[in-house]
Amino acid sequence: MINTELSVKMVMDRWNGSITQLDKLLTELSDEQLNNQIAPGKNSGTYLLGHLIAANDDIIRLFGLGDKLYPELLEPFIRQPYNTDAQTHTPAELKEMLHELNHHLQERFDQMTPEQWFEKHTAVTEEDFAKEPFRNKLNIIITRTSHLQYHLGQIALLK
Amino acid sequence: MINTELSVKMVMDRWNGSITQLDKLLTELSDEQLNNQIAPGKNSGTYLLGHLIAANDDIIRLFGLGDKLYPELLEPFIRQPYNTDAQTHTPAELKEMLHELNHHLQERFDQMTPEQWFEKHTAVTEEDFAKEPFRNKLNIIITRTSHLQYHLGQIALLK
Repeated sequence: MINTELSVKMVMDRWNGSITQLDKLLTELSDEQLNNQIAPGKNSGTYLLGHLIAANDDIIRLFGLGDKLYPELLEPFIRQPYNTDAQTHTPAELKEMLHELNHHLQERFDQMTPEQWFEKHTAVTEEDFAKEPFRNKLNIIITRTSHLQYHLGQIALLK
Repeated sequence: MINTELSVKMVMDRWNGSITQLDKLLTELSDEQLNNQIAPGKNSGTYLLGHLIAANDDIIRLFGLGDKLYPELLEPFIRQPYNTDAQTHTPAELKEMLHELNHHLQERFDQMTPEQWFEKHTAVTEEDFAKEPFRNKLNIIITRTSHLQYHLGQIALLK
């Protein structure tokens, strides 16, 4: 059991650390800077922020905790690539959404026991999970932290 | 015990996936592209490659597995910031080093039992580890994967 608790702590520490890193980065960037492209011809910081919110919002569904908070972000920030002419949300709106989402997820994560993190997520069937028990909730956080860091490295270029 | 094995598998899958992602990216970029800056005034892809090798090379020491393979990378790629006028290693040299290092680490990781991943690393004292058992070898891989992803997102901008 000790390793179960330790593993959850280590993975969640890295997730929380990454969320804090994003929050800090956002306080260091003006809205104007965030609207800039991270490199010539690449995504803007604002697009990447919307993309991260939409990706992390999906955790609610994957954990069987209800509906996404912001399903309207799927189309402009996941399905559609960045488009300089079509900004659907301002940095201020997205920052507020990020804050709400992180608070919402944190409240739910805090109620989970270590063992619950090793239960299956909703995108895998009972049958597949029996064969592949690593397709659990903790693994969702491992892959989302990885995704978050990938884009954090990009948004940091705007400083 | 099952969660111990699962946790090691999940963390190592994300590490190995990230290493594969870097390898693939390097096959997609010419040496000339890799020498370019990821964004105006920022690090070059070559510098970031040297930086990642130097950072991951340190795992050997942290795991108590002997000396670093490439201690000469510490100065130009960790201590010194990127300098357009001072390229100490070519992309071809660094790619060879990366290949060797990954092979070296993989051989050693393959010999570890799941329980050994939860043992302390060499940068923490026995006394501190008793109080903070999360400062173990698996956690080193969690944080290094995070670091790798951060810079992967940047190197990918060179495509």
